[in-house]
Amino acid sequence: MTLAEQLLSGNRLALTRMLTQVENNTSEGRAALTELFPHTGAAHLIGVTGAPGTGKSSLVNQLALHFRKQEERRVAIVAVDPSSPFTGGAVLGDRVRMRDLAGDPGVFIRSMASRGSLGGLAQATAGLVQVFDAAGYDTIMIETVGAGQAEVEIARLAHTTLVIEAPGLGDDIQAIKAGILEIADILVVNKADRPGVENTLKALRSALELAHPVRHVFQHHGKLEIIEAPDETIYNSWIPPIQKTVATEGTGISELANEIARHAEHLRESGDWAARERNRLGAELDALLQEKLVAHFREQVPESRYEAVLDQVFQRELAPWEAVKVLLNGRSE
Amino acid sequence: MTLAEQLLSGNRLALTRMLTQVENNTSEGRAALTELFPHTGAAHLIGVTGAPGTGKSSLVNQLALHFRKQEERRVAIVAVDPSSPFTGGAVLGDRVRMRDLAGDPGVFIRSMASRGSLGGLAQATAGLVQVFDAAGYDTIMIETVGAGQAEVEIARLAHTTLVIEAPGLGDDIQAIKAGILEIADILVVNKADRPGVENTLKALRSALELAHPVRHVFQHHGKLEIIEAPDETIYNSWIPPIQKTVATEGTGISELANEIARHAEHLRESGDWAARERNRLGAELDALLQEKLVAHFREQVPESRYEAVLDQVFQRELAPWEAVKVLLNGRSE
Repeated sequence: MTLAEQLLSGNRLALTRMLTQVENNTSEGRAALTELFPHTGAAHLIGVTGAPGTGKSSLVNQLALHFRKQEERRVAIVAVDPSSPFTGGAVLGDRVRMRDLAGDPGVFIRSMASRGSLGGLAQATAGLVQVFDAAGYDTIMIETVGAGQAEVEIARLAHTTLVIEAPGLGDDIQAIKAGILEIADILVVNKADRPGVENTLKALRSALELAHPVRHVFQHHGKLEIIEAPDETIYNSWIPPIQKTVATEGTGISELANEIARHAEHLRESGDWAARERNRLGAELDALLQEKLVAHFREQVPESRYEAVLDQVFQRELAPWEAVKVLLNGRSE
Repeated sequence: MTLAEQLLSGNRLALTRMLTQVENNTSEGRAALTELFPHTGAAHLIGVTGAPGTGKSSLVNQLALHFRKQEERRVAIVAVDPSSPFTGGAVLGDRVRMRDLAGDPGVFIRSMASRGSLGGLAQATAGLVQVFDAAGYDTIMIETVGAGQAEVEIARLAHTTLVIEAPGLGDDIQAIKAGILEIADILVVNKADRPGVENTLKALRSALELAHPVRHVFQHHGKLEIIEAPDETIYNSWIPPIQKTVATEGTGISELANEIARHAEHLRESGDWAARERNRLGAELDALLQEKLVAHFREQVPESRYEAVLDQVFQRELAPWEAVKVLLNGRSE
């Protein structure tokens, strides 16, 4: 039996081995991914992102417990930490989590710290998700630390994206919301028992109005005459709900799970599920193409030649754009 | 006169126009960058990063004022906001800043929100920095919002990287420090008048001990027998200092400026300045190469063929890796 066949037969050791192969981008891992690919596409992928200090990990734990206990789903968690490119900060997260979820074979948690480029990280995450998908995990949560571009790129992997906020996280938060809101399918205000929660809710509602002016106006006032873009499709689209939670006490978790289910239903009914799948696979295809093109190039240009050209750039004899031309022309020599 | 020549002659309008061309990656912008490139390499590039809520912008403003008033340097600020991929959140920052720095022709502030990929953002930032460098700005500060992988990649553009912390920013901060510390040349604890500053300092010192064990042990105990790696170069290397500031009151700013000057001196004496320049230019060359390779590929493969292959992936008839092979083989047909 191949590694992929063992995994499909439910072998947990094969799953673990394959995750490692895929994370390390080995040829064995790639072969197995290719073999598994026809068995993917069933899982609901949930992205969870938000600034540090919002309590994302606790929330993801609580959601996992809920999906296990109330819905008997098999749950995988991929915790991605793009801000720890050098040290294994993510490992600590695993240990903290074990107390709640350890011993349940229906839950699998995998942490991944970044190494090297962001592109590599997104690609490895896509691979891990495919492995869990093929292995029969119904719900796969992709949790990222931070709220930057890295998270946006990783959020593109998900069907449903949760953006987590919390009261009182400082001044810059406002600026972040503007961008991050647009990737949010569901907004969560965690730590909702803290002071300042009303301000956070108010700020989020204002930001939502800016991000979805037409839909928001329609929802709250019902005045058709102030709708700016009278496109029929607008009334079918999704308005990101705001859900309050206190993850450490389990408050709001089942309501949040309901919103997640409602969003999945919306995606399937509107056809957006398929559209997101196609975008996701397109992004993965592009990343692989890029990797392969660069690898081809590296094979064709000797390292010594590359270094010599870089030296000319360093000496300011060649501008970077000129250096690219020199290297590309040199390929066929 | 070409745009580049106008810029070199000190024309501020030419500078503004060129920044726009470079940010939009136009062919005119690239041509001008190539022309300017021999005039670059003089500026001190300072990266400033840290989690939201640490007061980075105020600190950068204060440093800019200090460099202007005390050292009469010409200062450029490139504010990069990788977390605002969709809306122009960075624009607000500009307006807030104008009060302090407006009207001074020796200061130029340029904000940039991300569009599309992170790679594009890093490349555009590198371009803007080159423009300011050629235009005779002595100090160029590259400020990023957030503390993720994006920031690490952008920090690679700088000679000196400042990582900003502040007291009381939540639990996840600890995890972030581990990774971000390794790119820090200088650690700044801003808002140092706030409660909890001692805890922040303590946490940073512990993290530094983990990140630089040998040097730290040597520095604090002076016991040569517990040095693990008795490499002479270790004693010449840089131990990131921790500087307390209260940017809103200007406290600690001149001390921080001294540390920045000390680091520049260290880089020049140790040869690290040249090493960082070479790394930086190498990263830029790689990014351009990648862009050019992908563009070449796009020219060779018709869009309809690409879409047809993506459809096969979507239908699970082809795995992404197989699709790459199909597309690459189809190139020469």
